[in-house]
Amino acid sequence: MSAFVEPSVENQAKLAKEASLELVSMEAHQRNLALRMMASELLAGAGKILDANRLDVEDSLRAGLPQPLIKRLALSPGKINMMAKGLMEIGDLPEVVGEVVETLERPNGLVIRKVRVPFGVVGVIYESRPDVTSDAAGLCIKSANAVLLRGGKEALRTNKTICEALREGLQKAGVNPECIQLVADPDRTAALKMMTMRDSIDLLIPRGGQALIKSVVENAKVPVIETGAGNCHAYVDSAADLDMAEQIVVNAKCSNPAVCNAIETLLVHKDIANRFLPRIKAVLDSRGVRLRGCPITLKILPEIEPATESDWETEYLDLILAVKVVGSLEDAVNHINKYGTKHSETIVTQDPRAAALFQASVDAACVYVNASTRFTDGNEFGYGAEMGISTQKLHARGPMGARELTTYKYLINGVGQVR
Amino acid sequence: MSAFVEPSVENQAKLAKEASLELVSMEAHQRNLALRMMASELLAGAGKILDANRLDVEDSLRAGLPQPLIKRLALSPGKINMMAKGLMEIGDLPEVVGEVVETLERPNGLVIRKVRVPFGVVGVIYESRPDVTSDAAGLCIKSANAVLLRGGKEALRTNKTICEALREGLQKAGVNPECIQLVADPDRTAALKMMTMRDSIDLLIPRGGQALIKSVVENAKVPVIETGAGNCHAYVDSAADLDMAEQIVVNAKCSNPAVCNAIETLLVHKDIANRFLPRIKAVLDSRGVRLRGCPITLKILPEIEPATESDWETEYLDLILAVKVVGSLEDAVNHINKYGTKHSETIVTQDPRAAALFQASVDAACVYVNASTRFTDGNEFGYGAEMGISTQKLHARGPMGARELTTYKYLINGVGQVR
Repeated sequence: MSAFVEPSVENQAKLAKEASLELVSMEAHQRNLALRMMASELLAGAGKILDANRLDVEDSLRAGLPQPLIKRLALSPGKINMMAKGLMEIGDLPEVVGEVVETLERPNGLVIRKVRVPFGVVGVIYESRPDVTSDAAGLCIKSANAVLLRGGKEALRTNKTICEALREGLQKAGVNPECIQLVADPDRTAALKMMTMRDSIDLLIPRGGQALIKSVVENAKVPVIETGAGNCHAYVDSAADLDMAEQIVVNAKCSNPAVCNAIETLLVHKDIANRFLPRIKAVLDSRGVRLRGCPITLKILPEIEPATESDWETEYLDLILAVKVVGSLEDAVNHINKYGTKHSETIVTQDPRAAALFQASVDAACVYVNASTRFTDGNEFGYGAEMGISTQKLHARGPMGARELTTYKYLINGVGQVR
Repeated sequence: MSAFVEPSVENQAKLAKEASLELVSMEAHQRNLALRMMASELLAGAGKILDANRLDVEDSLRAGLPQPLIKRLALSPGKINMMAKGLMEIGDLPEVVGEVVETLERPNGLVIRKVRVPFGVVGVIYESRPDVTSDAAGLCIKSANAVLLRGGKEALRTNKTICEALREGLQKAGVNPECIQLVADPDRTAALKMMTMRDSIDLLIPRGGQALIKSVVENAKVPVIETGAGNCHAYVDSAADLDMAEQIVVNAKCSNPAVCNAIETLLVHKDIANRFLPRIKAVLDSRGVRLRGCPITLKILPEIEPATESDWETEYLDLILAVKVVGSLEDAVNHINKYGTKHSETIVTQDPRAAALFQASVDAACVYVNASTRFTDGNEFGYGAEMGISTQKLHARGPMGARELTTYKYLINGVGQVR
């Protein structure tokens, strides 16, 4: 297979565009075969991938990159197995391309069919996690899109070996390997260029920290789906089952504090604050969570730190939780709509009217009743993998699977109609 | 009702956001009542609107603005009736908000409902046509969005009287008039500001000429749906019914050459070029259409002007048609995919395989078989009115009605599930 010379990103986009036309015209089973072959080549190439990853990790340690980044960068045989399993699962999912979403028959006899089609070329700009490389490539192949992958430079060797394996898999399935392109620029030049290539990139998805996403949103001329930032809340209503509330809050904060669907602020109705706050503090203390409270919280829990305005705005991604006592469900909703990032929000309540009002009023991609926010995830939704969690409202909201990587076109058939 | 003092656009967006929350929580019949009252106030205010319009038109004539712009600006009693009728029709359309698009039940018992919801606040930046004011406001109220309308400054007096009537209609239906905001800036300051107000405008739609749309796409940080530019083609296949082809080409070019769904280039298969080109020239001549041909066309029609590269790229919006003879259907598709603007494309053919291949391969919002491209229109699709024709692939493609002004959220109900 081709060695990775460093072609220009424009040329890569051109190759991807041409290859994407083959993808959309082939039968679905061939794309699914490609996904299985990609999985098998990933497993076959695991040794090479792990070797490359070791070098990337060593360099990153030497360069003093932060621990969480290195943790996200480091692969293991188990992680590569997971990546391969993800590709197999995507291959088994129902088709998303070619579906006739709707048929309109007009009085003049025109038949208008709305048909699901791929975007064409999808660009993904991401950071250190090499498993994004295979997830994103897999979802794009499933949805008949070619993909331009631009990962973090600290993962470049790893991503090169992963992409070689994925492209090998495409080739073995008789699919043009140019459908998967790794953009291997050592600086940001190519990434910035990708943001302006309106003619050759149909959709751009940034995945990563807030700084990356902000940079893409600010600079991009290509249509973008914003993903990621999650300043999520749990609201414990006056009608909550407090045992359930405790379990949900602990799970949503502690099961993986570094991810976007973890909660950052706990809102508690004043009527149950005296009962709930001491018990939740006890269990969160035992999990190492530091609390920061509003003035009313501090009266009940005088030993914790006070919260400042910036606490309500912060995605800690850490074992820290801001706590606020609210006077009503409406106050909780207003707080969430003011400070939230439209990601995932939950209410714990036994009152169905409170639940319905919360779900109707909170402006977020995923609004939960009596469940942990941690379920906002492509796998948990049954999408096999995800391209990220969209926090904007255009096109796709929440976990994005293969279907969210499609658009539609209208096919209109007539017998000579004119207007 | 409130006089139009000139509040800041930030303040208008804030008022709109607050009012939008009332819109989404009210029953659909109240929004539909509002649409009917808006129509009735438009009719009641027709005299005032026409007076204001006369002043706008006089000023524009004095300022020497181009004829087509003045034609789009000028209202008549008939046009106001049409605007009112449009609002009534939108009121009668099926509901688009609150629909449960999909329900997923997960193995862990979580029930995930995907529910259609409004964006919140929609911004519309447009040019001289005052009927956009009522169409856009109507579709936004139908879809429970508040709207910030920023029309051309040459139509400002007209738009003020129209908005006064529409807001009066809202008030008479018991709906907060702040749902409809006219941004009345005399220069581009407020429009430019709208493009950056990510926190308060959920979606921005530019409607107008290429320069306006380009400026919005280049400058906007708010999610944008690009509308409008239509470099559309008709391809007459070797298996075409030439009578039908003639009717479709004439209709698509001549019935309204100034609009985006008119064709700009005619592609003709080489096998029928000798028969078709002379007859289509004769009828287009009689309609005043000037042709510009490729070298092969010039051999058959030596009296017409030669086409240059820029002709293939140009949206004439005028009685000019570029003509090219192609060697195959594939050549036609490649030409369209290279030069088209992803708007509307048509093939005339009696060969179902050619039709299917054309529809599968052409990358455009609307791909026709044996019909005029002029049907790409919200009314023709049964949407009552339209917010424009989207030529991008994100979120909505082709004619955008009220449904295209909605997004969705996931409502997830559990019984205490944690992950």
